Amino acid sequence: MPKNAVVLLSGGLDSATCMAIAKSEGLEIYALSFDYGQRHRVELRAARRVARAFGAREHRVVRIDKAALAGSSLTSRKAVPKNRSPSRMISRIPSTYVPARNTIFLAYALAYAEQIRSADVFIGVNALDYSGYPDCRPEFIAAFERMANLATKAGVAGRRISIHAPLVKLTKAQIIRKGIALGVDYSLTHSCYDPLPSGAACGACDSCLLRKKGFREAGVEDPTKYRPTNKR
Amino acid sequence: MPKNAVVLLSGGLDSATCMAIAKSEGLEIYALSFDYGQRHRVELRAARRVARAFGAREHRVVRIDKAALAGSSLTSRKAVPKNRSPSRMISRIPSTYVPARNTIFLAYALAYAEQIRSADVFIGVNALDYSGYPDCRPEFIAAFERMANLATKAGVAGRRISIHAPLVKLTKAQIIRKGIALGVDYSLTHSCYDPLPSGAACGACDSCLLRKKGFREAGVEDPTKYRPTNKR
Repeated sequence: MPKNAVVLLSGGLDSATCMAIAKSEGLEIYALSFDYGQRHRVELRAARRVARAFGAREHRVVRIDKAALAGSSLTSRKAVPKNRSPSRMISRIPSTYVPARNTIFLAYALAYAEQIRSADVFIGVNALDYSGYPDCRPEFIAAFERMANLATKAGVAGRRISIHAPLVKLTKAQIIRKGIALGVDYSLTHSCYDPLPSGAACGACDSCLLRKKGFREAGVEDPTKYRPTNKR
Repeated sequence: MPKNAVVLLSGGLDSATCMAIAKSEGLEIYALSFDYGQRHRVELRAARRVARAFGAREHRVVRIDKAALAGSSLTSRKAVPKNRSPSRMISRIPSTYVPARNTIFLAYALAYAEQIRSADVFIGVNALDYSGYPDCRPEFIAAFERMANLATKAGVAGRRISIHAPLVKLTKAQIIRKGIALGVDYSLTHSCYDPLPSGAACGACDSCLLRKKGFREAGVEDPTKYRPTNKR
């Protein structure tokens, strides 16, 4: 019988690749997404497409109180920064940082893992081509894993819980190449922080810029629908 | 200007005492409670009374998806264990354990703390007269604190976040004596896992038994309304 794994799934490029990696290890996938009043709700539709494409055993979408994840331009009407150079993106923590978001997401993943008796949680964080978020770094993941093993029944019983972040040290281009090799259809995924009502990506937020750059550097055609003015 | 603190508040004896301690240190209180479909929803009414009594600046009640905290007799129709001896309570992790509950609660507290620029989170966990929950132990709290400082903007900027668990090594009787000294009105609090529709405590669940024992050992009259057959 295959082992169960919880895979955090935003519907973006990274989490889809992360799911492909978990799948390639022969794990039974339990996908976990969050509805937290994010601007880019089109993400959740992408998450459903991706979960289906990978034959996830279950796809749980947990609602998170909007007020609890306040204080970010992703969850408010503050403007999402546009057209920043990659060096500026990582120079400081940007306004798209959502306080303690990955801590909350991983906490829910841990609860889910205990419920389905899984010892493996996958998260597609990335510390290289990232946007300056403290909770995307390997030292955060390692500290969360340590805490998780003290927090849970499984940990106490010696069934070690692992928090896998297989993309943490990869560039966006490396992630894309890995995903293509594993058969990820990136046209199903969505990265933009500030999509048009049609669902098309803005092409100018940090997430769009990193995605474009990744495809360019990987030498792979980007299947994303960007707003017409940003079409190249 | 007083410093802000986030205090996790269930409405029970421990969290009320914990709030009294934070208040006695001159902190401005931001109370945080959760509505997660717990059987003992009368808890939330108690939490509101306690927050009001301590003049909390704000009392946030965060809704948590019921499915996300499944797998416990507290959140399901499984029977709550009754009339267990204290030695049996701690012999193994009981069915009232909710997978990753304190991890999720503290994750939300961390987000709240970042939002109000607080570096202090208080939680009334207790490892002595506890019910065998792994996420009530000092080593769990210490690991969470370490993780929190790697997860957040504040931690990265060197504004150290502290997770205070001032009751962790106290007996229930010591907690009650401390609370009485700080002026806690325990008639406002609620501990029972399985209250009657009237709000009266069952008097027989682990939480009631520990509460009764605590008052008895502290030599303080227990102001709790128990169901008539359990009246002593």
